[in-house]
Amino acid sequence: MHVIGVDLGATNIKAGVVGESGNVVTRVSLETEADLGPDHVIDRMALSANQARMEADLEWSQVSAVGVGAPGPLNCKQGIVIMAPNLSGWENIHVSEKMQERLQVKTFLENDANAAAFAEYWVGAGTGAACMIQLTLGTGVGGGIVMNGQVWRGPDDCAGELGHVPIRWDGVRCGCGANGCVEAYASATALVRIAQEKLDAGAKSSISDRLRYEPLTAKLVADEAHAGDELALAIYREVGTYLGVAIAGFVNIFNPDKVVISGGMAQAGEILFGPIREEVTARAMAPATDRVEIVPAILADAGVIGAAGCALQRLKEE
Amino acid sequence: MHVIGVDLGATNIKAGVVGESGNVVTRVSLETEADLGPDHVIDRMALSANQARMEADLEWSQVSAVGVGAPGPLNCKQGIVIMAPNLSGWENIHVSEKMQERLQVKTFLENDANAAAFAEYWVGAGTGAACMIQLTLGTGVGGGIVMNGQVWRGPDDCAGELGHVPIRWDGVRCGCGANGCVEAYASATALVRIAQEKLDAGAKSSISDRLRYEPLTAKLVADEAHAGDELALAIYREVGTYLGVAIAGFVNIFNPDKVVISGGMAQAGEILFGPIREEVTARAMAPATDRVEIVPAILADAGVIGAAGCALQRLKEE
Repeated sequence: MHVIGVDLGATNIKAGVVGESGNVVTRVSLETEADLGPDHVIDRMALSANQARMEADLEWSQVSAVGVGAPGPLNCKQGIVIMAPNLSGWENIHVSEKMQERLQVKTFLENDANAAAFAEYWVGAGTGAACMIQLTLGTGVGGGIVMNGQVWRGPDDCAGELGHVPIRWDGVRCGCGANGCVEAYASATALVRIAQEKLDAGAKSSISDRLRYEPLTAKLVADEAHAGDELALAIYREVGTYLGVAIAGFVNIFNPDKVVISGGMAQAGEILFGPIREEVTARAMAPATDRVEIVPAILADAGVIGAAGCALQRLKEE
Repeated sequence: MHVIGVDLGATNIKAGVVGESGNVVTRVSLETEADLGPDHVIDRMALSANQARMEADLEWSQVSAVGVGAPGPLNCKQGIVIMAPNLSGWENIHVSEKMQERLQVKTFLENDANAAAFAEYWVGAGTGAACMIQLTLGTGVGGGIVMNGQVWRGPDDCAGELGHVPIRWDGVRCGCGANGCVEAYASATALVRIAQEKLDAGAKSSISDRLRYEPLTAKLVADEAHAGDELALAIYREVGTYLGVAIAGFVNIFNPDKVVISGGMAQAGEILFGPIREEVTARAMAPATDRVEIVPAILADAGVIGAAGCALQRLKEE
């Protein structure tokens, strides 16, 4: 049995044929060309799915389902993207229906963060977990919850907004309009803001030298931290501590087996994970703290694998 | 089919015969006599169950199961209370086994906060919810999570510690050892502390008059708030806002249908619920905010009903 996963991003559409054990058979990537509107983008998604299928040498009759991972808010059951702020014109777009018209294959829609979390649960860093929490650190902080092998979507498919949990009620304003969300303290964007504030305040750091040639990024700060720069290390320690505060809450709420951190920042290693674990151990309750493993994500194609995996699961449940 | 629910508290043991539709047929209450040790307390629990049975005019053969709700941490599957800080000598007590020895009826153990939440889901304020979150405001802040009709216990039966979610990382020290837990801001104990601080700082209030004859309690502050006292209203507004911060986080995490507030403070009505709802609406994401109803618990015997209900559910699953 084969399923095609399609991961819709603002810049690129990725697609792949995925086998029943979560193995990626083929993968393709196309530009989204989002400025040409939803119908064009859906043509591109269908095209990417078709290319992935052909490269795998499969007939359409050999493809059991297509899974699409898209940014939300969305309605999974009805296959509708309600709004996608980063994709122009995407309002109440019937993605599943439109894909089915084009491909004649049953299509399932999933929130992209949930798809990525499901992939890590299925064949990645979260395998075997009775409860897995995923945080994706990027422009924002995305979230996903997998319990008893199922993504927890909530009745409106908008559960798992783990970036928008307050860790300081009167804290920094978040993009969502609330104050003190973990996203405002621990996204890559927040890390860069924190670094810039410290540099502006006159902190000495090897970061400054590199800024003559490059923009300030979370990756640059990680590089300098690994090279031993004190300020860069302090920045990662601070952000790791903020993440630890939020994760301590999740540990007390869920008693999870695994907390998986994905996104570029997760590759920073112990300079990030050390402070996270310290803070969680200091804050959360003992039986749950002993249980939980806080680990980096391991999949390169989580979006595609997860979209396919969720589709496969929903197909079996029908 | 009848089940007996037993609710083990530090002061009283409550027991009742509960029917399959969650109706309470009989109820009894005995003093716990906790100072006489675990085996004596378990004798009392068995006695209370037996009295409830006799009052209902049932033979033991007509009782399908016994459910015990007890403070944690505990191991539900094995029926062991690992530790009960308010019950002297309770360490690794095999409650289910000891009850079965005495009663010859299958006994199931449940965390008392989870039992109370399940009761509200089953026949109380949370009926019909795909996802219900319960907060119990008392000495501390207890929690319970019911999703798809099941209590979420986590792999170590220690999920649902919703009182120990941080809302201000560098905030007031909580009894659990961490800083800034919602319990440190929104329990009845915290409300009294906040009130005392304001009175000590010289705030004028009708509360002061009553303190010549009575101790300061959350109930007293609620009475004065309802009588129009400005300080008392401000105290409930402040505590409601703290609760709203935490609940906004739960709304973004779970996308729940219902958030149920129980404990004496929940009877304060709009002076508490108004500020909670305002803060949740201001903070949480729109589709989830539109969905969630934040309501007071309605059951007087939630502990007994929930212990019975969880036992009934687990009996059916066996």
